[in-house]
Amino acid sequence: MYELHYWPTIQGRGEYVRLALEYAGVEYIDVARQPGDERGGEEALINAMGRSDLVHPPFAPPWLKAGIRLIGQTANILLFLGRHHALAPKDEPGELWTHQLQLTLADFVVEAHDAHHPIGVGLYYEDQREEAKRRATDFREHRMTKFLGYFERVITHNSGRSGLLVRDTLTYADLSLFQVVAGLRYAFPRRMRAIESKYPGVVALHDRIENEPRIAAYLRSERRIDFNQQGIFRHYAELDGG
Amino acid sequence: MYELHYWPTIQGRGEYVRLALEYAGVEYIDVARQPGDERGGEEALINAMGRSDLVHPPFAPPWLKAGIRLIGQTANILLFLGRHHALAPKDEPGELWTHQLQLTLADFVVEAHDAHHPIGVGLYYEDQREEAKRRATDFREHRMTKFLGYFERVITHNSGRSGLLVRDTLTYADLSLFQVVAGLRYAFPRRMRAIESKYPGVVALHDRIENEPRIAAYLRSERRIDFNQQGIFRHYAELDGG
Repeated sequence: MYELHYWPTIQGRGEYVRLALEYAGVEYIDVARQPGDERGGEEALINAMGRSDLVHPPFAPPWLKAGIRLIGQTANILLFLGRHHALAPKDEPGELWTHQLQLTLADFVVEAHDAHHPIGVGLYYEDQREEAKRRATDFREHRMTKFLGYFERVITHNSGRSGLLVRDTLTYADLSLFQVVAGLRYAFPRRMRAIESKYPGVVALHDRIENEPRIAAYLRSERRIDFNQQGIFRHYAELDGG
Repeated sequence: MYELHYWPTIQGRGEYVRLALEYAGVEYIDVARQPGDERGGEEALINAMGRSDLVHPPFAPPWLKAGIRLIGQTANILLFLGRHHALAPKDEPGELWTHQLQLTLADFVVEAHDAHHPIGVGLYYEDQREEAKRRATDFREHRMTKFLGYFERVITHNSGRSGLLVRDTLTYADLSLFQVVAGLRYAFPRRMRAIESKYPGVVALHDRIENEPRIAAYLRSERRIDFNQQGIFRHYAELDGG
């Protein structure tokens, strides 16, 4: 039984791990979301990071507890889950290619976040609103298209012509691209409506994963937190070219 | 024989790969830096990224050519080199812990970069100078200390008490932390002078690696590009609290 340790009120980076665990059909506890659990809540999460007896302390959530091991950094957790739950190829070239795509998605996610927080994570949006308008313009016009175009190209070039990124069956990178598309549609609906027809492979991948039975069941469940204005993807009309 | 493909005039993210290759004593060609080589230069690098016949196209430099394989994303290249050249533990917990530290260093590097480019990578510094002043203040006061404190804690907690991050012998994560400290001293000399005595383990690790024979020889060689104002770490006195 795995334990996922992540902020209880947002999808955030924890969501990439949740999607992998849900698709793999693995049992896990989303620790900070357990009602009435004395380990639950944000305070426990903050306390856990400061524990002086940890040999491998995480820098930030999410981390996964697997037996006595703590594994931190989203892409690193997915590398582990990919290996142990058939969410990535077993051969080294395939394993590293999947991971390379995940790291590129992680870069995309940082930039999506910084579109509304270009100055500091510790400051409110309202305190960096003018800077956010400039950064979001650059993100919408240059970065979104560059990243989406890249993933479209990868899907097109996948030698299996499966419509997926890596092979004929899903990997954690496909699940993460689904989440990024969903996040961009939430945060930048106007911009996505304008450009997403240029990326038919990316959109088809999103729609296919949304309808995978275990993912569809998860998305309907209480376990899926809605997108909201505390997460990584946030909707401000003024940042969406509106 | 490996080929490293990276911008020829900056240390940048390629430097983490160069340090690993140099310390491992592995032969490699720094392709874009070969004088008179017809494959050399920035143009060849840009053309290579756009090639439509690549099964595993990289999103951005650096990438490593290993036989017929292309491996992209800095941390992913290091995962590969760590495995094949004894730059990381072979057991899975040790391998993933080393990688987790590398990914945290990568996050630190993004923030060091964005201190001078908070609005857009495609814009000049001069076009985002006011925003950079705000972001750099946040970086100096909150983020530098948080990251450096974290790595100090990891060195202190390393059960081998070796003064290194992971074990008794160097890993690619140690080499990367050396590079980050050197970069921070270049970009933020005033701030580093004020705070680095609080991180004696981090400073000692930097100094030790600087004096490792193969690293010392590399740093003295023509192969080492100097820090400069086109790289990730840039020195602007106004961003250093000056």
